[in-house]
This record gives sequence, structure tokens and C-alpha cells, in this order.
Amino acid sequence: MIVILKQQTNGEQIDEMVKWLSSFDVKVNLVQGTQKTILGLIGDTTKIDIESVKAKDIVENVQRIQEPYKNANRKFHPDDTIIEVEGRQIGGNSFNVIAGPCSVESEEQIITTAKAVKNAGATMLRGGAFKPRTSPYAFQGLRADGIELLLAAKKETGLPIVTEIMSLSHIDLFADVDIIQVGARNMQNFELLKELGHSKKPILLKRGLANTLEELLMSAEYITAGGNQNIILCERGIRTFEPKTRNTLDISAIPLLKQLSHFPVVVDPSHAAGITTLVEPLSLASIACGADGLIIEVHNDPKNALSDGAQSLTPESFEKIMAKIKAQATFSGKVL
Amino acid sequence: MIVILKQQTNGEQIDEMVKWLSSFDVKVNLVQGTQKTILGLIGDTTKIDIESVKAKDIVENVQRIQEPYKNANRKFHPDDTIIEVEGRQIGGNSFNVIAGPCSVESEEQIITTAKAVKNAGATMLRGGAFKPRTSPYAFQGLRADGIELLLAAKKETGLPIVTEIMSLSHIDLFADVDIIQVGARNMQNFELLKELGHSKKPILLKRGLANTLEELLMSAEYITAGGNQNIILCERGIRTFEPKTRNTLDISAIPLLKQLSHFPVVVDPSHAAGITTLVEPLSLASIACGADGLIIEVHNDPKNALSDGAQSLTPESFEKIMAKIKAQATFSGKVL
Amino acid sequence: MIVILKQQTNGEQIDEMVKWLSSFDVKVNLVQGTQKTILGLIGDTTKIDIESVKAKDIVENVQRIQEPYKNANRKFHPDDTIIEVEGRQIGGNSFNVIAGPCSVESEEQIITTAKAVKNAGATMLRGGAFKPRTSPYAFQGLRADGIELLLAAKKETGLPIVTEIMSLSHIDLFADVDIIQVGARNMQNFELLKELGHSKKPILLKRGLANTLEELLMSAEYITAGGNQNIILCERGIRTFEPKTRNTLDISAIPLLKQLSHFPVVVDPSHAAGITTLVEPLSLASIACGADGLIIEVHNDPKNALSDGAQSLTPESFEKIMAKIKAQATFSGKVL
Amino acid sequence: MIVILKQQTNGEQIDEMVKWLSSFDVKVNLVQGTQKTILGLIGDTTKIDIESVKAKDIVENVQRIQEPYKNANRKFHPDDTIIEVEGRQIGGNSFNVIAGPCSVESEEQIITTAKAVKNAGATMLRGGAFKPRTSPYAFQGLRADGIELLLAAKKETGLPIVTEIMSLSHIDLFADVDIIQVGARNMQNFELLKELGHSKKPILLKRGLANTLEELLMSAEYITAGGNQNIILCERGIRTFEPKTRNTLDISAIPLLKQLSHFPVVVDPSHAAGITTLVEPLSLASIACGADGLIIEVHNDPKNALSDGAQSLTPESFEKIMAKIKAQATFSGKVL
Repeated sequence: MIVILKQQTNGEQIDEMVKWLSSFDVKVNLVQGTQKTILGLIGDTTKIDIESVKAKDIVENVQRIQEPYKNANRKFHPDDTIIEVEGRQIGGNSFNVIAGPCSVESEEQIITTAKAVKNAGATMLRGGAFKPRTSPYAFQGLRADGIELLLAAKKETGLPIVTEIMSLSHIDLFADVDIIQVGARNMQNFELLKELGHSKKPILLKRGLANTLEELLMSAEYITAGGNQNIILCERGIRTFEPKTRNTLDISAIPLLKQLSHFPVVVDPSHAAGITTLVEPLSLASIACGADGLIIEVHNDPKNALSDGAQSLTPESFEKIMAKIKAQATFSGKVL
Repeated sequence: MIVILKQQTNGEQIDEMVKWLSSFDVKVNLVQGTQKTILGLIGDTTKIDIESVKAKDIVENVQRIQEPYKNANRKFHPDDTIIEVEGRQIGGNSFNVIAGPCSVESEEQIITTAKAVKNAGATMLRGGAFKPRTSPYAFQGLRADGIELLLAAKKETGLPIVTEIMSLSHIDLFADVDIIQVGARNMQNFELLKELGHSKKPILLKRGLANTLEELLMSAEYITAGGNQNIILCERGIRTFEPKTRNTLDISAIPLLKQLSHFPVVVDPSHAAGITTLVEPLSLASIACGADGLIIEVHNDPKNALSDGAQSLTPESFEKIMAKIKAQATFSGKVL
Repeated sequence: MIVILKQQTNGEQIDEMVKWLSSFDVKVNLVQGTQKTILGLIGDTTKIDIESVKAKDIVENVQRIQEPYKNANRKFHPDDTIIEVEGRQIGGNSFNVIAGPCSVESEEQIITTAKAVKNAGATMLRGGAFKPRTSPYAFQGLRADGIELLLAAKKETGLPIVTEIMSLSHIDLFADVDIIQVGARNMQNFELLKELGHSKKPILLKRGLANTLEELLMSAEYITAGGNQNIILCERGIRTFEPKTRNTLDISAIPLLKQLSHFPVVVDPSHAAGITTLVEPLSLASIACGADGLIIEVHNDPKNALSDGAQSLTPESFEKIMAKIKAQATFSGKVL
Repeated sequence: MIVILKQQTNGEQIDEMVKWLSSFDVKVNLVQGTQKTILGLIGDTTKIDIESVKAKDIVENVQRIQEPYKNANRKFHPDDTIIEVEGRQIGGNSFNVIAGPCSVESEEQIITTAKAVKNAGATMLRGGAFKPRTSPYAFQGLRADGIELLLAAKKETGLPIVTEIMSLSHIDLFADVDIIQVGARNMQNFELLKELGHSKKPILLKRGLANTLEELLMSAEYITAGGNQNIILCERGIRTFEPKTRNTLDISAIPLLKQLSHFPVVVDPSHAAGITTLVEPLSLASIACGADGLIIEVHNDPKNALSDGAQSLTPESFEKIMAKIKAQATFSGKVL
């Protein structure tokens, strides 16, 4: 941490500041310039609240030089984290395609879709039981019943299931779910993250639509702080000024998250663009630059879907795209 | 709602589409052009899921022409909503200043600060008991104890208290709180919003850092849908590319929210900018363009604050700013 | 400037780096930590290219601690710059309202509008002769003829005129213009800025729609570097994700630019929002937080305007708003 | 075009409106609802200024349903535009890699780099002679001399050259340049675009850092309106809130631009991220989702580069990346 002092600071004030900072068990180095004085802090500065330092009268600015996350940091965990789910691996050189409808709507719908995506080569099944919808008047999901139907589809197809949690009060309903998804809107629902830290289940953590990569990793850190290291990071598009796509897929997030962290990174091209014709190109791009998996919306009857029909693929188009995904994954050295 | 069909659509497909849309109890008008066909839907279209329409093969685009919110809409409630809190009014021509520390830290701190802000003219006391912090290693608030201390400060000063809820599992702890705040990160925590809809307490709903005004009003709609019409909207800055301020205060949100909705609108200049020297100019600007109140961070000792010290005012500087706030509020026709 | 070296850097590499940096006539202080080494550079670092430093193998990051602009910097010019235009002052405690149509369309239009805005209290006349339009098929302005008509309107009313330059090849046409405007799209047209630096005319420099305040000040620095210190900065809204307004007025830019720089700051509420009903509240907000002036679109017949009719006021509504602007300006200690 | 009228509009007003709109040679269809009246305009609406319609008292909103660009529109030009440059093709199934330094600095530098990139497989040479720099104190390029050196490098290697124009007053200097680049900051320098429309040279048009895809296509339309159809579109990252990358590469722009337009699309991964370690993954991603080429910064000695050293590759690392680029291009069905 570097503390830049204001121009007119006197010697006594500097001494007091150095004394205060030293009380946090860090070594403080003084660099005195003609105009400004800089303090360089050496040691573990995570205990120092950057805002408290900034609030001091004599401080002009403060810069962190160490990442504020530890457990999520690749510097301290050079090897890829590989997550085991029902005999499959996520991370390393494995590649996964998680497919299924936006919402679970009926037994027939979820089982038909599950069979179709399995046949096409998907490795896991997704489906929303609890649905975060902008409007209170929109379909809110089948809730507990939806989870039952997902489990039925798992029984039928053997595909592990991924579904979203919206409130920590529902956590008991997720006992048999294979991967718990934290949606973009809950990425900084810290009470929920803490609770999931006490679980052992893999958590698929989606980036919030205006959150930085550092904030995403800090949210992962919340989960790890509770003891759960099974985290899958998910890039799903950020909010920008461009109106042609629902969100802007931040493709650079993939290689950056892999550099900064050891967790697997998957991409959701369906939500990122909100347009079915972009699912294929964005999927191939994601694989080519290092993603560990994809989450793709597929609905047996998208025209009659109760939510997000516009971005769902039919089983037929999913099958065609899967052929290209497999080829690209193999080309990029991944095993699907 | 307007549905624009693709160029190559044939008569049979159009007939089928018109039949399907008519099944939602709306009247469908057909406008046939040389290149495109447009369907104009007349009636209550809130039951029609816009995504399902977009998913139809023959549909090029769909436009809503009615706002998707009703209870929050000024068109249906032309008069200002005025909220009563312990004998004070929020909305109409009343002006409120809610002041206090970011976090409640100790009895002495909150009571000293409460007395100071009351003396300076604040009408309500704010203070965080549950604190949403980006880092799991940062101070998380005194939680239940923090609420007790706020109630002690209320007893001492008579100021109604405003504090943030972070999880619906804590709701019982808020029984004696006067106004429950929903923070920016929870603006789309829909399970929490639903629960607060069943309460009768005033809810101070902060805009999420990348949420549109329409999304803010839809979140208000969630609360109203449960029966609670006591909502105060809060603009607190949005995330942009400008690095000099923590967030960018969207000042246009004030007059726009007042046009679109009947709820009172308050502004948080402390969080919007994250810089104490901007609290005064942003406060005056907010009043001049129609805000119904301000939320300002004041700490009896900001240099030693456990959170957000950099943006907190001292009681002395708050007092000076309050003099200007009172003058501007009076000038702008408000009663403080 | 602070240079943070990578963890594995050895002594020899550090020595070489210190030697290289010292060659720029700065003093280099070494702060050696357990994990990282930090170099603190003392002296005039503006000659050091930050990108070249970052490109060195052993460098992890580089931070500037001094602003990269000098002539525009209030630290070196504590007093407000006050610009004289035809006997009027811009800056200090003077307040100016520059009003007029988006485009000059005809002699009758510009003279009628000029008289109307003068009667209502405007102090200068604006009007576009060269118009930057997104579409090549849209009205591009009357060009040289438009400037002639503005000069005719000046003769008739005595109002100084402000109009936009779009290319340095047109500069001779601006010989009699009082203030030359550089539009948002040309804020980083550096060849144009250099040319205007050799002029003595006041330049009204608009912030680009995605430019930071530092970039705006660097563009001002380009003009000053040529010798022209007569600059008026203009905030006119930035591009964000919010769709209800054309742009988001960054109200914080006003006090920040006044802190960072000594140039007058004016605001364009018409372009910022793109909505006539927001012109009044945004104007009052701008004055309340310290603006030195406003640029407002007024058209004698906005319904038949050839450009930007939707955001133009009629002379009647402008007159009403001017009454409030005058009152707020007086209240805020400005002389209009 | 669809015009939505306000609720309280009376029959006479509607008749007048229909009459006015009809005067633009379009057919106006009236859809009268219980609350609102909608006018559907059929025919060529490009002559109608959307802002003038919005300015009418009785109009609530206006929606375009046709793209405002024609020459750039794939609907009217279904086949890919293929551009010939010195015997090479850009577009179709050809793939091009344009490589070279940010700035031309010396004869030795540009010729050494040109030979190196040619050996590695680059098909064209880039290099800045006129450099748009944020600071007036930074190296501004060798200007006319820089172009001479590029031509010398072309003579030596046979590589066609691409270089940026910053002002229409320099156009004569570009007589022997193969492809003229319009930089991001000049994407809406309409006077420059018009001038380039009268040229026959291929124009590489970079997207502005906060411009929409529609605005990019409208800028292309400006060039085509003058008669020049040789346009190469370039995605180079947009400005967002994410601080880890200089810009956010909008990867979706590639497939979208290919759908909307018939022009070739190239990507600049060096400027998009501003980080050398991201050049490889972003290049592969761009190819996988359909790009027609890449522009990559390579410098024979990036540590001593006069500009943008941090994002330049060495010839050695470029050679390694080129091997992967060739393999991915071949895999994706392109010929490099």
C-alpha cells in the first residue's frame, strides 16, 4: 500500500502518521520529495481499511499494490482448481456444456429438453426453479416444485443439475442440487454468499452486470472465507451503452480471470447477447480464448417458453451448434 | 404494444399470430406496408410476455408503448405520495435531511453523532447496523446490536431512524426501525422486496449502480404488489467510466422519477461522489432540481471511522452545509 | 510517479532500472519490501512516458501522482480565469446564458430567435452553421452562409455569437465569430485543437461523450500549449446505459472542474438530456452547484426545426425558465 | 416509422398530423386504441427527421423500424464486399494480419519490424505517422517523414501499408498509402469522412470508444455517400467501467456487423485490452467468431518504444502467436 501525503504536511504530522500505520504490523518506508511525501507500506496490509487512511486530513491519495483477495488469488494457488461433480470434472483440460431451459415449466418440458441436450452432447442440465424477474407480474418459476422436476430429469438422464438460489431461506431445498448458481443480481448479496461458504457444494457465481472482475473475485473470496473452495466463475455480459445486445460479453474476462485466479471460468452466451444467432459465434470465441465451459439456454419449444424465449435455442439448432463447439474445444486442447 | 413482423411473412402466418395475440384479451390492429407488417395491440398488454412474442419466428421486433409498472405510475396516481414517519412528512413540499454515520460503531459514537446532526437541523438519523462490504475481511457492522444502539439514539434525540436490511431472515430485528433501507446491491433482490411488500413500514429503495430508472420503478412495483405503498426512491449515483468520482450522480433521475412516479425522491450525495468536498454542491443541486430530501454521511470522528471515512463529514462541516441546505430548500419552496 | 516492480526482480535489474529512470533528471527512491520493490520518483516526471515504463519486463505497475496538465491546473493558477467577450465577462461571479437554435436555418429564424432570447435575458447567441449529424442524409447546416446570418443577428441585437467549428480548413470563416465552439465529437481532434491554440479567440470546449474529466483538461492543455488561454469548459452529458435521457448530465463535473482547473465551466442542459422538460431543473441544479453559465437551445418554431427540435424550447417557455434562472443565479451569488 | 400520440390528442390534431406526415410521400396508417393512437408510416422514411416528429406537441414517442443506413446495409447488398489491396483480398474467406509498431520512429525501426512481421506471416504493415496523443507533451509522430519511412518499408518487404489520417488537410500525403485508417477519435469527424468518400482508397474505419454499432455504420454510410465503397470496419474496444483492461473488446460486434453489413470486419486486440498477454486469446476468439483480420502492434524493441510500448509484442512473441493465429484461421475456414 502506498500513501501519498498532501504537499503542505509537516514533520510532526508525518511522524504521527507513520506511528499509526506501523501499529498495523507493517513496515513504513518514507520517501520525501521536493513537493510530496510518499509512504510505502510493506507487509500484510489487508487489515488496513483504505477508506480510513483516505479520511486522514494529510492524505492526498492511497493506492493498493496487492490484490485484496487471497484464497481466490492464483499467486498463492498456482494450480487450477478442478471441481468434481458426479464423476465429471470442471476445470483443467475438461470442457463442460451446461444446457437447458431458462425456467423449468413442466415435467414434460424439462425431461424432453434434458434428453435432447444430453443426446446433443451437453454434460449438465440447467433450469430455473426460482426466477429473478424484473416484473412482479411475470412468471416467477415453479420454485420448490421446479427443483423436484429437475431431480426427476436428472434421474432420467444422469445429467447433474445446476439451478439458481435467490434467498438463503431456501437453502434446504437445494440439498440434492449438484451445483448452486448465484445469479448476477445476487453477486453482492453478501449474506447469501456467507451462507454458501458453509456449504460444500460447488457454487456457480455469475458476475453482476456492472461489477468489476476484482469485485467478482471478492465475492468468490466471501464464499472461500467460509470454507468452500468449490467455485466456478461465470462471465455473462456487462451493461454498456450498446443497444443491439442485451449485454456486452466481456470476452477479456476469460483470460484475465484465469490469470488472476485458479477457479474454472464458464461463459453464458445466451444471456450475454440475448440473441439466438449470437450463441454460436460467442461460444466458439469463448472456447478459443480459454473458457472451461458454456451455459446455453435450450428449450424444447422456445416460442411458447414462459421466460426468455427469444434467446433460447431449439434442440435442433443446439445440436448443430454442439457439433461446432465439440470441434473447437478439441482444437483448443479441451476434452468435452 | 407494437409487433413488427419480418419482411417475408405470409398471410396465413399473420392470421395465426393475430389469433394468438387476441387470446390475451387485446385488440390487434393490422398495418400492412409494402415491406413490413405491423401489429398494434390495444388494451391491457401487461399479461403478454414480451420475450415470448420476440421468440416467434416471424417477429422482427416488439416495442412496449405502455410503462410496465402501474402502482408506481404517476399516470394512475397523479398526486404525490406523502409518507408519515413519527409525525414528520416525506414528500409533497416537506424536505428531509437524513444524516448519520455509515456504520454504527459504538453507543458513544452514534449518540454523539445523533445529537450533533439534530442540532444542525437533520430530521432523521441514519446508521448502518448490517453493512454490505466488498471484502469479507472488512468490518461487517454490529448487526443486531447496531439496531439496539440506533434505538437508543432515537430515544435520546427523538430522531426517527433509517437503517439497511441485507437479508429477509433479519426482518424481525427491524420491528422498531422507522424506515427500512434497501441498498443498491439489493435493489433486485426480489425475494426481499416481496417480503417488504407485506410490511407496512416505509421503504427507502436505493437505485442499483447499473439499474435503469424503469428497473428501479419495477422494484418499487414489487413492494407495492404486496400491498405496501410507502416507498421513498433514492438516487445514489450510477457506475460509469469516469474515475474521479466513486459513482456518477444521475441528477436527471430526480425530475424524471418525479414525472414518472408519485413517490418521494431523495438523493445520497455522499455515496454518489465518495468525496466530502462534493457533498455541498451536489446537495444544493439536488434541492434545486426538485429532490424531497438528502441522506448525508456524518461521523463524529471520520478519521477513525470503521467504514467510508473518506466520504463522511465532521459535525462541524455538516453544520455549515446545513445552513446552505436550509437556505436553498426555502428558496426552492420546500419546508425543512 | 511510483513504479512497482515484479516480485522476482533481482538487484542487478533494479540497479539498471534506477539508472535509466534517473536519466530523466528525477530522483529515484527505493522502497524494498519482503515481496515487492517500489521506486518513488521525485521531480518533474512529465517527460517520462508512462507506457514505456510499463513496457519494461520487470515492471508490474506504474502510478502517476501528479496531474499530467499544467497550464490548465488550478494548483499553478489559483485565480479564476475570466474571459472578456465584447464587454461581457465569463467566469468569476458573472453568469452567462447562451441561447439560440441548434441550427441556423434562415435569416428570419435566427433574427427572430435572437431578439426573443435577448428580450428574455440571454447574454449571448448560439446557432450551428456547420452541423455534425450522425446521418449523411440529414441537414448539414448552412455552413458559410450560416455564419453570415449569425453575424447579421449579432448586428441586429448586439449579442456576441458562439458557433461550432468542425474542421480546421474552415478557420478563416470564423474570423468574426466571438466564441468558437469545439463540439463533443471533436474534443480529441488534436490537429484542430493545435490550430485553435494559435488563435486568440475564446474557445468553448465541450466534453466528449465518453471522455474523462482528465482527458477534457488535457484537450484544454493542447489549446493552451499553443498560447491561447481563453478556454471555457462545457459539460454536456456523458453516455451511459440509462435509456430515458439522451445522455447523463455529470453534474459532479462542475465542482470538480472548478477544483482542478481555473477555467470557467458552463453546462448544456439541452443536449445533456435531450428532453425539453428537463431543461429547467437541470439548469437550476447546474447554477446551484457552481456553473458559470448555460447553453440552451431555443427555436422560434421548434416543431418545424431542421434539427434537434425535440430538445428546443419555444421563446415563451424560455422566457419563463429565464425568470427562474435569474432568481437562482442571484440566490447563488452570481451576476447575470 | 411508428409515431405514438399522446393520450389526450383530439381528432382534428390527428388529421393535421396525418396530413403533415403524408407530405413526405409515405402512407400513414392509423391505429386508434382506447388510450393511445398510433400512426404507422409505410414507405421510405429516411427523409423524415425523427427529432422534428418528436418535437410535435401531440407526439409521445417515435420508433424507427428501418435501419437509417442503406449503402452499408446487407439487406440491400447480400454479398460480402471484398476489397483488393495490392493483389491481396480483404473479406470473403481471406484472412489478413496487419502488424507493425504503434508509431513509426526511425528507418531502422520500421524496416526491422516490417521484415520481422513479414517473416512471421503478417500480410500488411501498420505504423503511425500522425499520432493522436492525449497529451500535447507526448511524441506526436514523425508525420510526413513517417509516411516516407513506411513507403520505404513497403519497398523493402512488399507489404501494403496502413496508416492513420488525423486531418483532411494532410490528405495529399496519403497518395501512396494503401489503406487509410480513420482512428476511433475521428469516427465522427464528418468533414474528414466526406473527403474520404471522394477517394477510391480503402478506408479502415475504427469504432469510436463510446459509439454504437449503428453509429459506426452511419459513419461508413458517410464515406459511401461520396462514392467510396471500400470500407473495412474495425472493432477496437469500447469504454466501460472495468479498470483491468484499457477498453472492453466488444466481441459481439464481429458477428453483428457481419449480419448488418457487407463490409469486412477486423479486430484490434492490442488497443482493445492494452495488455500484451491478452493479444493471443483475443486474437483467437476474434477469428473463431468470424473476424476477417487482425491489427496487432509489434515493435522491434517495445521497451524503448516512443508510444504504447506496454501493449506491443516483440517480434519473437508475435511469431509464436502467428503460429496459433494461422492454425485457428485455417480451422475456422479462412485463408491466411
